Amino acid sequence: MKDVSPQDLDGNLRLAARRRPDHRTLVKVGPVEIGGSRIVTMAGPCAVESEEQVIEIAAQVKQAGAAILRGGAFKPLTFPYRNEKMFELRERGLAYLKEAGRRAGLPVVSEVVDVRLVQTVADYADMIQIGSRSMQNFPLLEEVAKTGKPVLLKRHYGASLRDWLGAAEYLLYYGNPNVVLCERGIAAPHTHQPTSRFIVDLQVVPAVHEYTHLPVIVDASHATFRREYVAPIARGAVAVGADGLLLDVHPVPEKAAVDPLQALDYQAFASLMEDVKGIAAVLGRTV
Amino acid sequence: MKDVSPQDLDGNLRLAARRRPDHRTLVKVGPVEIGGSRIVTMAGPCAVESEEQVIEIAAQVKQAGAAILRGGAFKPLTFPYRNEKMFELRERGLAYLKEAGRRAGLPVVSEVVDVRLVQTVADYADMIQIGSRSMQNFPLLEEVAKTGKPVLLKRHYGASLRDWLGAAEYLLYYGNPNVVLCERGIAAPHTHQPTSRFIVDLQVVPAVHEYTHLPVIVDASHATFRREYVAPIARGAVAVGADGLLLDVHPVPEKAAVDPLQALDYQAFASLMEDVKGIAAVLGRTV
Amino acid sequence: MKDVSPQDLDGNLRLAARRRPDHRTLVKVGPVEIGGSRIVTMAGPCAVESEEQVIEIAAQVKQAGAAILRGGAFKPLTFPYRNEKMFELRERGLAYLKEAGRRAGLPVVSEVVDVRLVQTVADYADMIQIGSRSMQNFPLLEEVAKTGKPVLLKRHYGASLRDWLGAAEYLLYYGNPNVVLCERGIAAPHTHQPTSRFIVDLQVVPAVHEYTHLPVIVDASHATFRREYVAPIARGAVAVGADGLLLDVHPVPEKAAVDPLQALDYQAFASLMEDVKGIAAVLGRTV
Amino acid sequence: MKDVSPQDLDGNLRLAARRRPDHRTLVKVGPVEIGGSRIVTMAGPCAVESEEQVIEIAAQVKQAGAAILRGGAFKPLTFPYRNEKMFELRERGLAYLKEAGRRAGLPVVSEVVDVRLVQTVADYADMIQIGSRSMQNFPLLEEVAKTGKPVLLKRHYGASLRDWLGAAEYLLYYGNPNVVLCERGIAAPHTHQPTSRFIVDLQVVPAVHEYTHLPVIVDASHATFRREYVAPIARGAVAVGADGLLLDVHPVPEKAAVDPLQALDYQAFASLMEDVKGIAAVLGRTV
Repeated sequence: MKDVSPQDLDGNLRLAARRRPDHRTLVKVGPVEIGGSRIVTMAGPCAVESEEQVIEIAAQVKQAGAAILRGGAFKPLTFPYRNEKMFELRERGLAYLKEAGRRAGLPVVSEVVDVRLVQTVADYADMIQIGSRSMQNFPLLEEVAKTGKPVLLKRHYGASLRDWLGAAEYLLYYGNPNVVLCERGIAAPHTHQPTSRFIVDLQVVPAVHEYTHLPVIVDASHATFRREYVAPIARGAVAVGADGLLLDVHPVPEKAAVDPLQALDYQAFASLMEDVKGIAAVLGRTV
Repeated sequence: MKDVSPQDLDGNLRLAARRRPDHRTLVKVGPVEIGGSRIVTMAGPCAVESEEQVIEIAAQVKQAGAAILRGGAFKPLTFPYRNEKMFELRERGLAYLKEAGRRAGLPVVSEVVDVRLVQTVADYADMIQIGSRSMQNFPLLEEVAKTGKPVLLKRHYGASLRDWLGAAEYLLYYGNPNVVLCERGIAAPHTHQPTSRFIVDLQVVPAVHEYTHLPVIVDASHATFRREYVAPIARGAVAVGADGLLLDVHPVPEKAAVDPLQALDYQAFASLMEDVKGIAAVLGRTV
Repeated sequence: MKDVSPQDLDGNLRLAARRRPDHRTLVKVGPVEIGGSRIVTMAGPCAVESEEQVIEIAAQVKQAGAAILRGGAFKPLTFPYRNEKMFELRERGLAYLKEAGRRAGLPVVSEVVDVRLVQTVADYADMIQIGSRSMQNFPLLEEVAKTGKPVLLKRHYGASLRDWLGAAEYLLYYGNPNVVLCERGIAAPHTHQPTSRFIVDLQVVPAVHEYTHLPVIVDASHATFRREYVAPIARGAVAVGADGLLLDVHPVPEKAAVDPLQALDYQAFASLMEDVKGIAAVLGRTV
Repeated sequence: MKDVSPQDLDGNLRLAARRRPDHRTLVKVGPVEIGGSRIVTMAGPCAVESEEQVIEIAAQVKQAGAAILRGGAFKPLTFPYRNEKMFELRERGLAYLKEAGRRAGLPVVSEVVDVRLVQTVADYADMIQIGSRSMQNFPLLEEVAKTGKPVLLKRHYGASLRDWLGAAEYLLYYGNPNVVLCERGIAAPHTHQPTSRFIVDLQVVPAVHEYTHLPVIVDASHATFRREYVAPIARGAVAVGADGLLLDVHPVPEKAAVDPLQALDYQAFASLMEDVKGIAAVLGRTV
């Protein structure tokens, strides 16, 4: 086909490749459109800790401008030793998240790790997240795609753009066109030691827009892993052209059950959203 | 506990940490012991293509000194577009592999990608391989561990030693002490362009031996991705102290269905095994 | 010393470490202050090609909002084979740059590579650039520091934050407090292949501000190496808190003698400066 | 030119590219040939600390099989704060090194960092080392090349193979054909934390031999930065085909003025040389 752009990676991005400069997909999550002029912020706790907590967070992030509620009910960790109390929530965590979203009027996104639990997560979530470590879990991609729910596909911290777009192509290939990509930091040479585990790759945002018609957002919380860097990187993400943000918000970040160093409190989140609105306006976008 | 070495990564390697200098685990795969004085070579086709082919390869690698037969029946690929004919083998590929191993007197190792197929693979294979992309697929680790079969845990191409050992700890935590680690190349800054995708990290071999009591082998084929580098890196792996090798062998490498650039032919494999014997002898080991 | 922050890297940043949250150095280049509320843009040709050319560029970038004129007269290249015509300019290139700056009312910055030419460059330039490859050329750092001229210290593409700050510490140690750091992209695992050689590390901007009192700017042209990415990354740099930008501008970028893929033309530069003004205003800064 | 191999990197390796499979350069350092069948070991103290010390070390490494004496008299460090006593040696350190080499019958290699001191180092050393941080210090490359002395060109810890070979091309371009490449570890994603700063890239050894006719050796001491890993990596380097080794040897490594964690004592060095002899013999080489 003559019109195929060089961005299709030798014919492998048959479905994901951008075919024309204005070729963009809008992904709908409930009433929210991702990939259009609105910058879509997904915010909430890294892990759902209780029903009261997630209901309160939902109300707060909604008020500050978030469009989607995020919250983890199943959390993959590097080592098998964890705070067991928290992780008993699992399906209950999903129910709490859904209820909090319902009350706040926000669709919800949550991660699935186990291919056998895809349907369970799909029963509660409006959008299903594929986490960094699962990016190339192809059976999981297939099952998630087949739910028909929109998918948030995080980039593996060690993955090239090519590998990431290959994973997106799987989702499209299995019949699900509603794919949003999410950059969340990559392993890099000992760059910020001892400051950071990862560095966020904001250059990948225009690269994604060049190669594919799919929207891309940035998880400024997991990418930076440090509260002090979250707001700068979130602002930067919007400025480079990201279609949205993923952010950890917690009423008392130091007491968060998971990743206590990276969550924003309500005030910091609201303040960041003001900056995001300003930067979005410069680029002709809204929040 | 006073005797815990600093190598337990802050208490997270409760089971995998080496506790004394001579603390080593021997992993048995059929009659073959990995982690002792013998250098164990696992060789065979990247993908099982036909019964005749894998039977022939098994006989050849056995004669040259291989101790275990490898062969892929389910192959994860970066993009969903592939040579469909080959991949119809799936369970039949496992059956062919098992039969080839039986005839040659070699135990067999094969990869599982889908948690729902763990039992199927366990029915045929003497050792189950967790591939690079699945290293942190925790539900898969759990199910594989619970089969009781010895496990070959490949390092993700973007994973730190810490993340890799964390995945090994999961396998031990789920009750399976028979874990062999396998280095297979890591993504590195644009180091060898245009020569190579990955670089092999041979320094991780003594690092693994310092941190853990588990054996470690090197996949010189996938690490280098180029035939010309396979023999040098395989020799290097043995010289740095690896407990074994994983090698792609194919009668006509250029015609291999998967990764045709990296397989060794019979003669190159036999020649390499001679060198491996010589280097092993220098280190007081056998083949 | 009790008051030393943990950011002094074990006592090695005796001069460069930030001692209090509001500890910031203002570096003056002629009448221009870097590190204050103004976002300082340094723009001009990658290499000075002729007197007319650089005079024209100077006028254009001045009009669009640049504060300092940049231009290379001595260009280190990866291989010894180059467009000889261009490189005969050398000292003449510096004279042209200085004259162009004088006419436009802009101070000028240019790179020195050879320790024996430091005084020559200092005779013409208002600010001396240490290039990426020279970041740890310690004799060069010493001689440049001793000129008393403000210094623009680019980060090596393979350097950690620690190594970069160590190089800055040398400049301060040799008696020159006027140091501006410049991020220009780092080598990373095969991240954007085939799109880019480097990735820009915008996360290092808040990290620099956390560790040191020195200003930091971003070279969006060399970091991205592709025109299409320059404006997004420049906007992102300002949004994450950079104190300025370094940008290649050329009347006909495709015909630039060096790095023709990355320069902006006048219109693209002026348009970018409008966005930069808008984003700066959101952050309470000016251009 | 039709016969040019694809390994000349688009015509930029006019002098360094290998033109035929058996195209190899022999570099002579005094009576020692590098690049032939002999594995050449360069050993000695990281920094020359006293005349007596380096004389003793020279005798010991000679006896164990070293062919060249190494020793630093000018040491670049990451930060400007150092053990001043040691570094007063400078030219005296070179004189001690030369005298120690003379007594032991070993040619000597030492590093030059400052282009203005090239002749001084050339007056004492039989081979001049370009350190990792100076790999792309092009004026230094030019002056060192013009001394006519053989050159040991270390790879920058962040450099691609392409950049490294480009630096070698400069040396050849300036008229010096006696270039030996030296791998010494590269910055990689947070791979071995907290074990190591760098990882050694042994795969680059066959890659160098494929691209160029120049010999390549491995600095197992600086690459690993840990004594426990030096011997395994040195053995691995020989097994992958390196033409030699560079090793730090110190009578009491813990008391070494520089890099005390990585030097071998006499016994460990002698033991390693025995293994190296054995592995060399397997490959048809000598020590």
